[in-house]
Amino acid sequence: MSDESTDANARHAAKMKKIKAARDRMMEGKTEEKGLIMVHTGPGKGKSSSGFGMILRCIAHGMPCAVVQFIKGTWVTGEAEILRNRFAEECRFFISGEGFTWEVQDRERDIAAAQNGWKIAREQILDPEVQFVLLDEINIALRYDYLDIDEVVDFLLHEKPRMTHVCLTGRNAKPELIEAADLVTEMSLVKHPFRDGVKAQKGVEF
Amino acid sequence: MSDESTDANARHAAKMKKIKAARDRMMEGKTEEKGLIMVHTGPGKGKSSSGFGMILRCIAHGMPCAVVQFIKGTWVTGEAEILRNRFAEECRFFISGEGFTWEVQDRERDIAAAQNGWKIAREQILDPEVQFVLLDEINIALRYDYLDIDEVVDFLLHEKPRMTHVCLTGRNAKPELIEAADLVTEMSLVKHPFRDGVKAQKGVEF
Repeated sequence: MSDESTDANARHAAKMKKIKAARDRMMEGKTEEKGLIMVHTGPGKGKSSSGFGMILRCIAHGMPCAVVQFIKGTWVTGEAEILRNRFAEECRFFISGEGFTWEVQDRERDIAAAQNGWKIAREQILDPEVQFVLLDEINIALRYDYLDIDEVVDFLLHEKPRMTHVCLTGRNAKPELIEAADLVTEMSLVKHPFRDGVKAQKGVEF
Repeated sequence: MSDESTDANARHAAKMKKIKAARDRMMEGKTEEKGLIMVHTGPGKGKSSSGFGMILRCIAHGMPCAVVQFIKGTWVTGEAEILRNRFAEECRFFISGEGFTWEVQDRERDIAAAQNGWKIAREQILDPEVQFVLLDEINIALRYDYLDIDEVVDFLLHEKPRMTHVCLTGRNAKPELIEAADLVTEMSLVKHPFRDGVKAQKGVEF
């Protein structure tokens, strides 16, 4: 192993240790209930859907909640529609900027959109009214370094109000986020109909 | 390997081959859209939540849907409450029998409840009005053989209307069901706060 990669590994280990220590301090003296940092990741389905399932539970329990969508799909998603039309009072709904285009030439615009989404996310998390915040597909923005992972993790560990739940979704969650989280679920794909040429369908995919 | 286990393996392989053949026939001449058999399994979170997330999408799209819950929790779940109070017209909601008690002495009652749930499930799936049916925690009833797996798989492959979607949730999905399904997602637990003594919380767990 080169000195450079040994250094990188050592830095990584030190960083992880620091995150773990911060997390351990946070967990010390915990009472029975606390706001959770939750991550839904992996290549399988259900990462966003289960986040929206939890939003539905919050609405049922009268817990004010908020959603920030970091990826604006090309279709109008069912979740967005129903939250805006039927639950506007119970759940605040935001789509960050203009969304990603996945095209390199718009990288600057994508970064600005992600940063704007994170600004909204911070405001919602800090708002004492809001008890649950879903940051849908934020992992994509983190993966491409449109957002700074250290800043996000630091905010979640040190500035998030103690009782507020935050759920972060999207594949390829960064190890720093997994280390900081209380609950991490990995969704794996065992079988998928797209392989057989079946297209995305209403109700199931969007 | 004993003759007995060789026989068992051969029977299993033959059964799987038969299920696969039936599935392949079903897939032949498929058009672009078809009703899917979906399975959410594994020890992680999000199996039921993402099923309810899809229900929310169906409601948004005006697709009539139905939920049959095979396990009645000891708490009133948020999903049940909101579906019954706010979406009674869009989504039919059933809890099978009196639910499971997980106590051996009530096995007969549990079997009756599961069978009753399956009767309702069949009716909802066959109802041409209904486009999406969520069979929540049916895998538990299948695992304990409260329902016959061959009967369930046979019904899904041969009697389910072509365009109807069915989503079956619960850990330990039987291999026969996975073989028959179009889309299978496994939820794995990477990290869970219960390990640290944090209790189940409103909005997150129920």
